[in-house]
Amino acid sequence: MCELLGMSANVPTDIVFSFTGLMQRGGRTGPHRDGWGIGFYEGRGLRLFQDPRASCESEVAQLVQRYPIKSEVVIGHIRQANVGRVCLANTHPFMREMWGRNWCFAHNGQLADFQPADGFYQPVGDTDSEAAFCELLNRLRLAFAAPADIDAMLALLVASCSEFRHKGVFNCLLSDGDWLFAYCSTKLAQITRRAPFGPARLKDVDVIVDFQAETTPNDVVTVLATEPLTENETWTLYQPGQWSLWRRGESVAAGQS
Amino acid sequence: MCELLGMSANVPTDIVFSFTGLMQRGGRTGPHRDGWGIGFYEGRGLRLFQDPRASCESEVAQLVQRYPIKSEVVIGHIRQANVGRVCLANTHPFMREMWGRNWCFAHNGQLADFQPADGFYQPVGDTDSEAAFCELLNRLRLAFAAPADIDAMLALLVASCSEFRHKGVFNCLLSDGDWLFAYCSTKLAQITRRAPFGPARLKDVDVIVDFQAETTPNDVVTVLATEPLTENETWTLYQPGQWSLWRRGESVAAGQS
Repeated sequence: MCELLGMSANVPTDIVFSFTGLMQRGGRTGPHRDGWGIGFYEGRGLRLFQDPRASCESEVAQLVQRYPIKSEVVIGHIRQANVGRVCLANTHPFMREMWGRNWCFAHNGQLADFQPADGFYQPVGDTDSEAAFCELLNRLRLAFAAPADIDAMLALLVASCSEFRHKGVFNCLLSDGDWLFAYCSTKLAQITRRAPFGPARLKDVDVIVDFQAETTPNDVVTVLATEPLTENETWTLYQPGQWSLWRRGESVAAGQS
Repeated sequence: MCELLGMSANVPTDIVFSFTGLMQRGGRTGPHRDGWGIGFYEGRGLRLFQDPRASCESEVAQLVQRYPIKSEVVIGHIRQANVGRVCLANTHPFMREMWGRNWCFAHNGQLADFQPADGFYQPVGDTDSEAAFCELLNRLRLAFAAPADIDAMLALLVASCSEFRHKGVFNCLLSDGDWLFAYCSTKLAQITRRAPFGPARLKDVDVIVDFQAETTPNDVVTVLATEPLTENETWTLYQPGQWSLWRRGESVAAGQS
């Protein structure tokens, strides 16, 4: 199984992956040896670091650990391949431009008999995950002629995710840089932290969230992960079919499909 | 003015930028302080490193210098902003998926009164360069319902570039990971190197091309750059309107528009 990680914050926030720690979860021999990737939004730009190599052997992973990048939306993924070869084109997160925004997607799970019809967006690699991402975008694009607000798109998004999860396992994170959408098929957890944070740094097993020097009492940071990343805090566990939408760290919509 | 750099090779080849050198060309105070980017194809995957910061101050640039990535097609760009703010979304090269392949584009120059109609691909940032890239893809997509061979697309590509250059300056590099297309509006130079290379390493002022340990007598590497990068070799200088198409280091088509 893969590991998902997402962040939505109301101030540009550092999220630093301790890949070594994350790798140790399954031992250095697995299971998440088949690449990793992380996308940081910087304004409308999306900075994507990916490596088909295991994160414990990746020099790019070392850069990401050493070089905190401030972002309001982050999507990360550690891969254990089930469908698709281990190569860059099959490494999450995936990215497409739609309506002049960079959309970013990561998926945990697998889909059986998933053969969507060819649409405008087509997968570059051969994972079911990228095919599902393209299908989501194709459906949205077909349903909305012009750029639509996420509130208007939510029903279609949730219905599609719900349909996909009945074909297998479909936990996913999706963003256009403004909002972050999360869908749970089997396993997802969330926590929202607010100022004051005590020590400005919160250290998880696998993830460090730092707040920029000029933190304010209004700071809100939500972290989503496949499994809770700390033991001394109360994470909210998702039920199958549960979904949520975040903007600047705050929940703006949530429901059960 | 910006600097373009492209490579097409028939074996996965290291191309390493000496950013320090490249920056010194205009002095540490300019002119190419407004970001840099480089895209390496790995199979069908495209690895993109970008930074809106000057390359001499960029930690990501240090990674790229330290960590040679083997690729058969590379597109690089150092930016001096003229249109568009200095930010990640305005940093070349740009990338879009079309027909299940990653297309990559970098532009040197500027276009006056360039306001293409909205199409399927839309710019995320506010540069004329990204708008021109989207317009190129929109025209191709409109003209070809299904994935077409580059030979079939060339006429439209060249005619569009020719049209664009009459709106200003339009030197560009474009690739889908298989072929590399170059168009000269004002300034472009090329060199093709073949085995035996003497010392396996060719060091330019700004760029190092390395050949993998298992080099063969059949190795062919073509480098394209805004200006010749070495003084002791004969570079071919392009005329305005001249274009070329490369695959695995070899010229497969060329012409004058």
